[in-house]
Amino acid sequence: MAGSTFGTIFQISTWGESHGKGIGVVIDGCPAGIPLTEEDIQKQLDRRRPGQNRYTTARAESDQVEILSGVFEGQTTGTPISLLVRNQDQRSRDYGSIAELYRPGHADYGYDKKYGIRDYRGGGRSSGRETIGRVAAGAVAQKLLGELGVSVTAYVSSIGPVTIDRNAIDFSYIEESPVRMPDANATKKALDWLEACIQSQDSSGGAIECIVKKLPAGLGEPCFEKLDANLSKALMSIGAVKAVEIGDGTAVRFAKGSENNDTYLEDDNRIPYKASNHSGGILGGISDGSPLFLRCSFKPTPSIAQPQSMLGKDGKCHVESIHGRHDPIIVARAVPVVEAMTALTLADHLLLAMTSRMDHVKKVWNSATP
Amino acid sequence: MAGSTFGTIFQISTWGESHGKGIGVVIDGCPAGIPLTEEDIQKQLDRRRPGQNRYTTARAESDQVEILSGVFEGQTTGTPISLLVRNQDQRSRDYGSIAELYRPGHADYGYDKKYGIRDYRGGGRSSGRETIGRVAAGAVAQKLLGELGVSVTAYVSSIGPVTIDRNAIDFSYIEESPVRMPDANATKKALDWLEACIQSQDSSGGAIECIVKKLPAGLGEPCFEKLDANLSKALMSIGAVKAVEIGDGTAVRFAKGSENNDTYLEDDNRIPYKASNHSGGILGGISDGSPLFLRCSFKPTPSIAQPQSMLGKDGKCHVESIHGRHDPIIVARAVPVVEAMTALTLADHLLLAMTSRMDHVKKVWNSATP
Amino acid sequence: MAGSTFGTIFQISTWGESHGKGIGVVIDGCPAGIPLTEEDIQKQLDRRRPGQNRYTTARAESDQVEILSGVFEGQTTGTPISLLVRNQDQRSRDYGSIAELYRPGHADYGYDKKYGIRDYRGGGRSSGRETIGRVAAGAVAQKLLGELGVSVTAYVSSIGPVTIDRNAIDFSYIEESPVRMPDANATKKALDWLEACIQSQDSSGGAIECIVKKLPAGLGEPCFEKLDANLSKALMSIGAVKAVEIGDGTAVRFAKGSENNDTYLEDDNRIPYKASNHSGGILGGISDGSPLFLRCSFKPTPSIAQPQSMLGKDGKCHVESIHGRHDPIIVARAVPVVEAMTALTLADHLLLAMTSRMDHVKKVWNSATP
Amino acid sequence: MAGSTFGTIFQISTWGESHGKGIGVVIDGCPAGIPLTEEDIQKQLDRRRPGQNRYTTARAESDQVEILSGVFEGQTTGTPISLLVRNQDQRSRDYGSIAELYRPGHADYGYDKKYGIRDYRGGGRSSGRETIGRVAAGAVAQKLLGELGVSVTAYVSSIGPVTIDRNAIDFSYIEESPVRMPDANATKKALDWLEACIQSQDSSGGAIECIVKKLPAGLGEPCFEKLDANLSKALMSIGAVKAVEIGDGTAVRFAKGSENNDTYLEDDNRIPYKASNHSGGILGGISDGSPLFLRCSFKPTPSIAQPQSMLGKDGKCHVESIHGRHDPIIVARAVPVVEAMTALTLADHLLLAMTSRMDHVKKVWNSATP
Repeated sequence: MAGSTFGTIFQISTWGESHGKGIGVVIDGCPAGIPLTEEDIQKQLDRRRPGQNRYTTARAESDQVEILSGVFEGQTTGTPISLLVRNQDQRSRDYGSIAELYRPGHADYGYDKKYGIRDYRGGGRSSGRETIGRVAAGAVAQKLLGELGVSVTAYVSSIGPVTIDRNAIDFSYIEESPVRMPDANATKKALDWLEACIQSQDSSGGAIECIVKKLPAGLGEPCFEKLDANLSKALMSIGAVKAVEIGDGTAVRFAKGSENNDTYLEDDNRIPYKASNHSGGILGGISDGSPLFLRCSFKPTPSIAQPQSMLGKDGKCHVESIHGRHDPIIVARAVPVVEAMTALTLADHLLLAMTSRMDHVKKVWNSATP
Repeated sequence: MAGSTFGTIFQISTWGESHGKGIGVVIDGCPAGIPLTEEDIQKQLDRRRPGQNRYTTARAESDQVEILSGVFEGQTTGTPISLLVRNQDQRSRDYGSIAELYRPGHADYGYDKKYGIRDYRGGGRSSGRETIGRVAAGAVAQKLLGELGVSVTAYVSSIGPVTIDRNAIDFSYIEESPVRMPDANATKKALDWLEACIQSQDSSGGAIECIVKKLPAGLGEPCFEKLDANLSKALMSIGAVKAVEIGDGTAVRFAKGSENNDTYLEDDNRIPYKASNHSGGILGGISDGSPLFLRCSFKPTPSIAQPQSMLGKDGKCHVESIHGRHDPIIVARAVPVVEAMTALTLADHLLLAMTSRMDHVKKVWNSATP
Repeated sequence: MAGSTFGTIFQISTWGESHGKGIGVVIDGCPAGIPLTEEDIQKQLDRRRPGQNRYTTARAESDQVEILSGVFEGQTTGTPISLLVRNQDQRSRDYGSIAELYRPGHADYGYDKKYGIRDYRGGGRSSGRETIGRVAAGAVAQKLLGELGVSVTAYVSSIGPVTIDRNAIDFSYIEESPVRMPDANATKKALDWLEACIQSQDSSGGAIECIVKKLPAGLGEPCFEKLDANLSKALMSIGAVKAVEIGDGTAVRFAKGSENNDTYLEDDNRIPYKASNHSGGILGGISDGSPLFLRCSFKPTPSIAQPQSMLGKDGKCHVESIHGRHDPIIVARAVPVVEAMTALTLADHLLLAMTSRMDHVKKVWNSATP
Repeated sequence: MAGSTFGTIFQISTWGESHGKGIGVVIDGCPAGIPLTEEDIQKQLDRRRPGQNRYTTARAESDQVEILSGVFEGQTTGTPISLLVRNQDQRSRDYGSIAELYRPGHADYGYDKKYGIRDYRGGGRSSGRETIGRVAAGAVAQKLLGELGVSVTAYVSSIGPVTIDRNAIDFSYIEESPVRMPDANATKKALDWLEACIQSQDSSGGAIECIVKKLPAGLGEPCFEKLDANLSKALMSIGAVKAVEIGDGTAVRFAKGSENNDTYLEDDNRIPYKASNHSGGILGGISDGSPLFLRCSFKPTPSIAQPQSMLGKDGKCHVESIHGRHDPIIVARAVPVVEAMTALTLADHLLLAMTSRMDHVKKVWNSATP
């Protein structure tokens, strides 16, 4: 319960440090009977892998996953699925020099206060490599969602000053874009911006949006386990995220009720349809059958090569440069992480919501044989 | 586990519907030995009470709290604290006419799909009255925080187009302002704006900010139970919230690393100090000893008096007005709710973080008598 | 999470002290659409009520239950069900004299060490009155089980030296027997024994057995959430229980594998049937479709009127008599408590097990409308 | 949440099947700053390892553990500790013939009903090999307990008809005895009995007792998370356990209050001492400072070589012998498992109980630096 477990029914526990022996995750509560192979998982891990191009860290890791348990003859068995990725390129000598410093924008200081001991190599547990476990487990959650026809698609919507043109969105372009923007034009501008950041030994913030289609209405629990509450937690738990928005997000504070309410109109055949989706598919914490829409804002990579003034364990200021291999932008590699956290939350809520109605309970148990 | 329980150690379970017999909360896991009276709790309930002024619903409720258990001779005993507020003004006849309609911007449709049955009187469980339990429990959490010197202060930062002037913030003005803005000038403009909304039978969105002082460093658990992740969940679980921001929030996506990193400078006595607080007091999910800062955006009250086109249970469109007694703006009364959810999250994390270090474990148990 | 919450999906939180304002329970996660009235609950509370006869405490309590939330038009709505029983006869003057003493066989000493403060009136939270919340919630769980045809029946199997004759068991006699034994002959002997105990200002231990019929196979989760593990926890959490046995229980340690295995035979029509039920309906922690059978042993009421030598807060020995109104035997009134804890565990596991198979998941969601 | 996670603060998640790639466990919530090596864990695994002698399965497994995360420079860091044991001797051909049969006394039938799919090789997840994860994690829990001076010692108290002589108990003999009995004489008789069982292709039940010394008073939470309730769950979750007893256990049902109460006497210096320990160190679910004492009864190994009549997936009876490598008695190898489950429960409760008192909370946080 010290933070590395997520979910109530579809529950995952991740482990591992940046420069330890490896990274992994145990998934418990995945229903039996879902086809699953290592390739299903590897496909997503390859999207978050370092070294994909000039805009991601040069650390050489193939991040090959191994399924250690919970799958038998190509199907999930309902028992824990343990996934392991061994670390390969652990150049921890890069980090030794800052064992005595608290890097700005990092968790170093907090970890030292919290634990009194800290694996400083590459940030240890607070490294972005921790998301390998999330992405691996998320791939399994996406298989479950796929069985029910639910799709989860994330993409980069802005990098620094460059924002996608909402009228030019082309989802088929996402994986072609080196920065996973669904817009060729914006991609070009973003690459120019990142080039400038690299030249000035700096990094850039950005945003990721995610859209979920075919989600049944009725997901989410009242009060504290609202669907949007859990999505917020899931996404804010990604290291660099500093804001989560559902539907119109921060814009709602400028809106009037008459503008923000999603009213119904009738089409030519007098069939009602929802004329807008300001809510982003969630009302009162419960999915309403519309597409789910969310956005999260990522801060710029805190590790930058230019010299910075930072606090040391000795209680004094030190001006130092942080060496190592870092991404000038996080969002491109974070797209599969956002999809994973969204999928994990939805898979859990789909299972949780099965027990909301006695007629559903009877549907399962009345057909059960003794 | 169906949504009405919050927290791991300092854990609350709320219950009650808008037009049922009452609203309440059970707090389990509150440490023994904290002085607690009904007045401590009533004080906060009075701040969220309806009928405070023209800008809040006219529903007449005194919302008197009764402590039913867990307090003995003026102190918490460590056992569950049960708090009860009886409903008084339950004019449910106001709502009967819309039993067959799904109000825009409300959870009505989702509840019907989820449960197959719905207490439609005043929104039932999805009513804002549900927050009584949160505020009552939050008052207890604030007592705990107070014992450690931690203070939690929320205020309205914007209403529609009116935003407070950050250079004119005066916390002592919050409770004087009918809309809980810490800025007399902005308050005046906001009241004008709300008057216009009332005239046009409309409502307005707004935002609340919250600042926490004297929070120890080292709170928050790695990975999924990060302090900001749980704060996001806590705040997004408030019905009308559509965005949660920590520190610089959505602005980080436009920032560069060199701008967003909070570096240290040395003062004249060569004592290091943090020159900025873009992080809002949380790095890598762990509190860093700086003031915690967050903001949440509230959508406009969905219940407006003007006629709206809405879906009915019969699958057809109906143009209807929603009668009843509604707030033209939610944020003023939501200030104690934001404080409550923040305090509940922090109290829980303070208790959780006690077990992070073996030297702290020994500190407690070595002094224990057999 | 400080002990007063039970269950994962069908989750209850109890509260209240012996001599506080009342006792109650909040049930969250009960499926919507189950018919429920106060009478359904009162019926079970009446079975555990004090003052039923000479063998139960003379404390005068009618223990009337009030449903405060979660039921609308006679049906559960899926939202929290809050149940309240006000205390009436709170003669706490009986207890004042032992505020400074740790009663033998009671939790007094442990509470003082744990909390540093203790509501000593009638044992406070550690009183048997705490089980009111269990029985009330258990009645709701039994309604749920009833919808699926599952029945839970407990009875007293032994009191002191008197044990029921297994060949003479008559379930219809349980409620006729003042000590809830399903055997008229044993009842008579038990009453004689209890009369002797009362004369000597003493109390007696005993045992309760419970049998569950029509439970589907496949309940229970592997490893730590086995069905028998959770039943053991549920039953051992009843104050006076010191042993829990499943199936043959302690007798298995004397058995050989060839004796203990439940093998199958074929009947005259060559239909296989299980020739024995040593397992008590649970194998490897999973229900196997046979009747579930368990037994728990209750220690004698620790409060006895004869003088005892006990430790005081002053660290010295004191010989005192414990006044107050106490049962010479607990098991008769504990029968509905055992049924409640069994039913609560089973209801929770029935809901948990719904998500074990992807074909069951599809069964619910494929029929869901968007 | 599907069963493979145990504990609230000191929380473990196990995974792995008998004939899969390996077995493992992730420990989250272990405090930072505890010295830990692979040898600390290996020592306990070696005690449960197969092939120790003639009375344990001949399966050849060295069960070497690897620490994958959470330990840095020989100390726990507070982050998840992942432990891995690769399976080596996976002769699954032994099991192919019974893929279509439900073995008596095993979970086979329940798993098939629950999941619709089953890894039948060696029992898959329901195999006793699953306890490797428990023992490995338990070794870490024992390190934590050791830091506080708490000791946990289990031993075999009976095998079939042979019971240890309570006046001859010698703890130093436990590891010398091939069946872990603390009594040389009983050991000899037990070995004779087991030899007879092996000759008749049969197996034997037995019992394990466990004693815990130097446990602080005040552990355990009221109501449902009582210390004995959680110990019962922990122990009953071990596959073959069918009864759990605390203190006098089942014997309490024959006792009178005057006999069962542990009263205090004064020694020659008028210092009070507890004259007996019928409670086994737990009263009202809270530790009372006396030694904790518990017993669990293990059924005989269900896998026996003699032919048995069992149900098949085809719904017919089949008389078959179960080949494979099985223990004639489980208890000897289960001693470290009982110690592990006890230690895990106590470690969790020690951490949970730290937050019971506000003075303890202040003790930790007032010394915290910002």
